[in-house]
Amino acid sequence: MKHGADIYEKTLSSVIKGVAPLDAHAEDEAREYQSRLAKPPGSLGRLEELSVQLAGITGRVHNELDKKRVISFCADNGVTEEGVASAPQSVTLSQTLNMAHGKTGAAVLAKRFGCEMRVCDVGVNAEINDPAVTDRKLAYGTQNIAKGAAMTRDQALRAVLCGVELACAAADDGVKVIGVGEMGIGNTTTSSAVLSVLTGRAVEEVTGRGAGITDEAYKRKLSVIKKAITLNEPDKNDVVDVISKVGGFDIAAMAGAFIGAAYSRIPAVVDGFISVVAALCAYRLCPLSREYMIPSHRSFEIGYAAAVNELGLRPLFDLGMRLGEGSGCPIAMMMLDGACAVINGMATFCEANINDEYLDEIRKTDSFSVKDI
Amino acid sequence: MKHGADIYEKTLSSVIKGVAPLDAHAEDEAREYQSRLAKPPGSLGRLEELSVQLAGITGRVHNELDKKRVISFCADNGVTEEGVASAPQSVTLSQTLNMAHGKTGAAVLAKRFGCEMRVCDVGVNAEINDPAVTDRKLAYGTQNIAKGAAMTRDQALRAVLCGVELACAAADDGVKVIGVGEMGIGNTTTSSAVLSVLTGRAVEEVTGRGAGITDEAYKRKLSVIKKAITLNEPDKNDVVDVISKVGGFDIAAMAGAFIGAAYSRIPAVVDGFISVVAALCAYRLCPLSREYMIPSHRSFEIGYAAAVNELGLRPLFDLGMRLGEGSGCPIAMMMLDGACAVINGMATFCEANINDEYLDEIRKTDSFSVKDI
Repeated sequence: MKHGADIYEKTLSSVIKGVAPLDAHAEDEAREYQSRLAKPPGSLGRLEELSVQLAGITGRVHNELDKKRVISFCADNGVTEEGVASAPQSVTLSQTLNMAHGKTGAAVLAKRFGCEMRVCDVGVNAEINDPAVTDRKLAYGTQNIAKGAAMTRDQALRAVLCGVELACAAADDGVKVIGVGEMGIGNTTTSSAVLSVLTGRAVEEVTGRGAGITDEAYKRKLSVIKKAITLNEPDKNDVVDVISKVGGFDIAAMAGAFIGAAYSRIPAVVDGFISVVAALCAYRLCPLSREYMIPSHRSFEIGYAAAVNELGLRPLFDLGMRLGEGSGCPIAMMMLDGACAVINGMATFCEANINDEYLDEIRKTDSFSVKDI
Repeated sequence: MKHGADIYEKTLSSVIKGVAPLDAHAEDEAREYQSRLAKPPGSLGRLEELSVQLAGITGRVHNELDKKRVISFCADNGVTEEGVASAPQSVTLSQTLNMAHGKTGAAVLAKRFGCEMRVCDVGVNAEINDPAVTDRKLAYGTQNIAKGAAMTRDQALRAVLCGVELACAAADDGVKVIGVGEMGIGNTTTSSAVLSVLTGRAVEEVTGRGAGITDEAYKRKLSVIKKAITLNEPDKNDVVDVISKVGGFDIAAMAGAFIGAAYSRIPAVVDGFISVVAALCAYRLCPLSREYMIPSHRSFEIGYAAAVNELGLRPLFDLGMRLGEGSGCPIAMMMLDGACAVINGMATFCEANINDEYLDEIRKTDSFSVKDI
């Protein structure tokens, strides 16, 4: 092992050790406070659960997420030369720039809902000299995973640490919640490859059509993923090895962002398929990071369900979205705002002039649980 | 038939005749514009569908819902004397006042998301002299449906027209979307009764535990609903008859609000169980009103699914909520805002510098459909 890589291994390991569990006392306080609000117990469902999770993250019952940021990591994937994606590689560059200038789906949603949009180049296959794009380029795209490893272990570690850095920088800037998105033609291919290795599921079970490909291209995508796994022999118990061999710079940096958010004790919103695969990588590297994750939507991409189940998370909504970029995050952040509004603004039974007779009655009933969507 | 009631029948009938279908040309224009936005076709799922529906409602491709109002109709139900609800009737009054003063769940969510909250008394069993509550009181609560009709046909018609009035007044005030909520102890009992009659489903299939009742009270609730239907013999083909015999002032006014919104060509957001039953009443009275409805969340209450399926609508999200009051509406309105942001703000392929090669490729693929949640 090279000296340089050793430093990155140690740094990541030290960050992971720095992630603490949620504050159980604050969670209990939030639960107790929710029980005093003037409503049937549990009647605000997941908005109540979110307020409890936020309390555990921040250590405070009352929170205001007054500064939000979606961080979108952009990178190219060498595997696109196999014809696995509907769009040409150049679209990564176009959409990275469009996103940084507020014109893509995620960017307009972020703007509408008062979230900052931070666009970070971790490996776009082009020279980008644009102050609106944060430059953390590790290479001009990955290598083609159908022919060898996507990147070196050293690069994978640096990409993960770049994500850690951007999440920690957000917390330093006073950001109260981050969303974790991406842009990169070919990244449903790499995400399916990583997910298949990490979960041991068949490639067919976790591979969809991404942005939309023909039957022929879909068959090619399946075969390319299988070939990449066979050829590279990633070690499923070593997440960094898996990412470096069949993943991408975006997935690596996103995994780091989830870990960095947990390290900084701020919640991190999971977007769609690529984001949930990165979240699973973060969870495998640092199990406590999961406690800081907030799912957003159920992606249309078929591998999403496998990854989110493995994480033990339940998406908050399902709008049939499959755009990526972090586009689901601003909507989930609105729901978090709703959760804060409820616990901060609702009257308690006492303040609401509702008498003890009612309280005694509702205490007799079974508690409700929240259904899966 | 009394002369007075005849006037109300004629007025309602004339409002219903004034409801026009959506503007199919504007819908087509919106679909065509969506296809030019720089994203894989359909990748923003229901946000795209919502933008098309809004175009059909307003006749314009680009919309801004810059003024929103949740209207919550409050009324008491005589049937509470049968012990079908967990809370005493006095909670209707307390929560009507708390809602009008911004302290209930729906009120804090409305405020957080920039919606006005209009609280309207259509039948609370108490004198309310509070300028924050719009006074349209029809009676001090309904009669007990287990012993006779809830109200006269005349009262039912006046309650429906009151809802029409408030929706039309909202449109006159420049409100671009209304949400339709309620407050009334005992109103899951009346809603289940109405739903059972309108759909022909067994009472057990459409009756849940409302705000939370014991097993004993639940059995009582089922038996009371069956008794009310047997005793009153509502005519399932005459919605006003059904509402007047086994419904409530809130349900009647809410049904009117859905019709009024359609008449005024503004969208109306459906909240939870009581709201969706009122929406079904509106649909049966005025089938075109459905085209103006926007569902919000899937209520935890078991009858919700039956009603929403009957309407042919699909909820936008599921947060396990069952509070009522209109609490799901502000969140759905945020999603509508997101839909507007996408169609108004995203770059087209042309503006995004994405070339024709990609466009040709994506045109080859099958179109995607959106999954049910």
